[in-house]
Amino acid sequence: MNIIEIISKKRAGLRLDGEEVKWVVRGFVQGYIPDYQMSALLMAISIKGMDSDETVALTREMLESGCVFDFSGSREPVIDKHSTGGVGDKISLILLPIAIECGLRVPMISGRALGFTGGTLDKLESIPCLRTDLSPQRFEEMVGEFGGCFGAQTEELVPADKKIYALRDATATVECIPLIVASILSKKIAEGIGGVVIDVKCGAGAFIRRTDDALRLARALEEVGGEFGVRVSTVLTSMEQPLGHAVGNALEVAEAISTLQDHGPTDCIRLTHRLVSEMLLLGGIVGTRIEGKKRSIEALSSGRALDLFLKIIEAQGGVIDMKEPYFGLPKAPVVKKWLSPKSGHYDFMHPRLAGEVVRELGGGRLAVSDEIDPSVGLVIHKKKGEPVERGEPVFEVHAGSDIAAQRAVHRIEEGLVISDGPVWPHYLFL
Amino acid sequence: MNIIEIISKKRAGLRLDGEEVKWVVRGFVQGYIPDYQMSALLMAISIKGMDSDETVALTREMLESGCVFDFSGSREPVIDKHSTGGVGDKISLILLPIAIECGLRVPMISGRALGFTGGTLDKLESIPCLRTDLSPQRFEEMVGEFGGCFGAQTEELVPADKKIYALRDATATVECIPLIVASILSKKIAEGIGGVVIDVKCGAGAFIRRTDDALRLARALEEVGGEFGVRVSTVLTSMEQPLGHAVGNALEVAEAISTLQDHGPTDCIRLTHRLVSEMLLLGGIVGTRIEGKKRSIEALSSGRALDLFLKIIEAQGGVIDMKEPYFGLPKAPVVKKWLSPKSGHYDFMHPRLAGEVVRELGGGRLAVSDEIDPSVGLVIHKKKGEPVERGEPVFEVHAGSDIAAQRAVHRIEEGLVISDGPVWPHYLFL
Repeated sequence: MNIIEIISKKRAGLRLDGEEVKWVVRGFVQGYIPDYQMSALLMAISIKGMDSDETVALTREMLESGCVFDFSGSREPVIDKHSTGGVGDKISLILLPIAIECGLRVPMISGRALGFTGGTLDKLESIPCLRTDLSPQRFEEMVGEFGGCFGAQTEELVPADKKIYALRDATATVECIPLIVASILSKKIAEGIGGVVIDVKCGAGAFIRRTDDALRLARALEEVGGEFGVRVSTVLTSMEQPLGHAVGNALEVAEAISTLQDHGPTDCIRLTHRLVSEMLLLGGIVGTRIEGKKRSIEALSSGRALDLFLKIIEAQGGVIDMKEPYFGLPKAPVVKKWLSPKSGHYDFMHPRLAGEVVRELGGGRLAVSDEIDPSVGLVIHKKKGEPVERGEPVFEVHAGSDIAAQRAVHRIEEGLVISDGPVWPHYLFL
Repeated sequence: MNIIEIISKKRAGLRLDGEEVKWVVRGFVQGYIPDYQMSALLMAISIKGMDSDETVALTREMLESGCVFDFSGSREPVIDKHSTGGVGDKISLILLPIAIECGLRVPMISGRALGFTGGTLDKLESIPCLRTDLSPQRFEEMVGEFGGCFGAQTEELVPADKKIYALRDATATVECIPLIVASILSKKIAEGIGGVVIDVKCGAGAFIRRTDDALRLARALEEVGGEFGVRVSTVLTSMEQPLGHAVGNALEVAEAISTLQDHGPTDCIRLTHRLVSEMLLLGGIVGTRIEGKKRSIEALSSGRALDLFLKIIEAQGGVIDMKEPYFGLPKAPVVKKWLSPKSGHYDFMHPRLAGEVVRELGGGRLAVSDEIDPSVGLVIHKKKGEPVERGEPVFEVHAGSDIAAQRAVHRIEEGLVISDGPVWPHYLFL
């Protein structure tokens, strides 16, 4: 086979057959196909697309590039959750212990911050001493002992995805449905799960902005998952404003813990219960969504989910002190509050702006090798449609220095809208 | 500026402004923009296109990446010829001395073999001891002394094109009109010429296969050339069968010398006279094509062009012995003739097949670092439509070994068509 002919074929909009896809993925992982040829092919795929057979072949090859877990011996249903990524999305942290308390096993492997969106792994690593680089053996032990854990994609797990993802991130080929499908599903199938609920985020603060694209992605995920015997259930949710109030690693972990204490933001709670109920339905633990939601609420309000969360974190080496402010998580030296100069209704702050400001504060990466400052971020006190009083704090910036804080405040001020008249709130579910 | 935003913009089919094009070309030449990002951008350009302003900006930046010759002091008009590339195209070798004998200066800088097509430089270098890597000073001296010479693209001349071209060749982004235009014109404008005649090859054995694409390319070349004050005249010619009979480096040089001795193949002679007459018209030396053709024929049949060719080759260090068979050029150890098993009319051999067989014999490159065997190649005795007698030789393979010859014969046999009924010949000019 010849890589140039394969690139030409896709450039012309033709189908690649299974053998060609296999050869490309192997060649790239083994280093025979250099980055520059792979990125040309990824761009051609991004523009010309891939059909369902091609996507299945790509998913299979990526999956087979690494090791695969096997939880088929588990008495409990093994179900995971995945989000396609948004701003302020800390749901995995809240949901994992709840879902386990409701009777599932959740071998969750999460990713890092990408572009303007955060990553569950980076959030978790703001917890002092926490380890996410579990060996496959330790990962399986954790799932056996606690019903689940927070793992990282290691060298063993879907190395093809890791390598392809890094290249996509650097070449504007992230937003491509078949590539998204193969990337998500290869990792989830490798977890050895029976099913997965996927939160397909759609809107200004997501990689997918249009509802029809989100629907296409959801259908492709369900269809391709089915080919591998993994039940995929999708939930389309709006990403027009950050989820919850906090954006930034430690701030989001603190918000997740507050939510597990049962006083979190409404949108985080609603979304968590919705996703858990889908997981329970998929695992056959409940027969209806309402019943699933009831169980999820019980697990949360009883405090059992919080207890389990703290146990899992402790088992992964993390130190959380429930008596300390911010639970002992790293705190930024500078906190700058912004007070509203007028009364009105909170209307708009572009979620991408929020994500990018946090990235610039040091809470995300501009290059793969960048270190993250876990303490920085934003707290946005208001949700779209809520009333704002003159002099009331609307948001606060947590920064490493006065200058950085000042610059962040200026950037947000420019993109912030407080309207005089009433403002319609955002719907969370599409 | 941000390379990922620029790639995204082009991926979405939007225009890049002059500053963005400049920043990308400089960043790539200086190494700030890595290959894998440039190849993603080149693929997006190949699929989404570039408008005339973008193409002018790209041409200008590529031109300005290196040194530029200045022949504005020349008494004679300075006009070059370029071909977009085909199989068996040795016209530059024949045309250059004729055009100079007719009163032009021709500072010709040629390229190497690309894909299945040959390159004038590789052909020339089959002449023992010939040097094409002339310094800018030596190049100017040669043009002053002989009226022209055969130069190679050095590090000084349009380095951006050299770097971009290598990447395009490896990423299936060669066939893209704005990139072709910028590549051709940046090099030709850098020669310091007043005008250039471009032979736009179209058909199965060219990079442009459809006539409407060839017309679009021709128009774009004329339009963009005009922006730089260089007159561009285009001739559309068919590339449905190799030009002449010989394909392969030394074999083509030998055929070019035979043509300069005035017993060459009809298509090579016709095309040469046509292109020279366009050059003379562009240089203002003649007022009509007929007059141009007359002068071209005189320069050839008088033997003056051959004398000049031999002088230029000698001045560049090359050794040609007119008394030796094949003029002392390298000869392959194995020559295998293929005899027709039946009578009929020579119908079809895909020109790409001919080019690829020669490449496999060692006459072209599969990787940039490959060495070329100048002696190997094909001689196809017949042109489409010519009668073939049973037992008559139709083609011969010149190879380095019996096995290689046998394999080449088999590949060609499979793609060769000799028809029973009459066969319509190919038109050379479109």
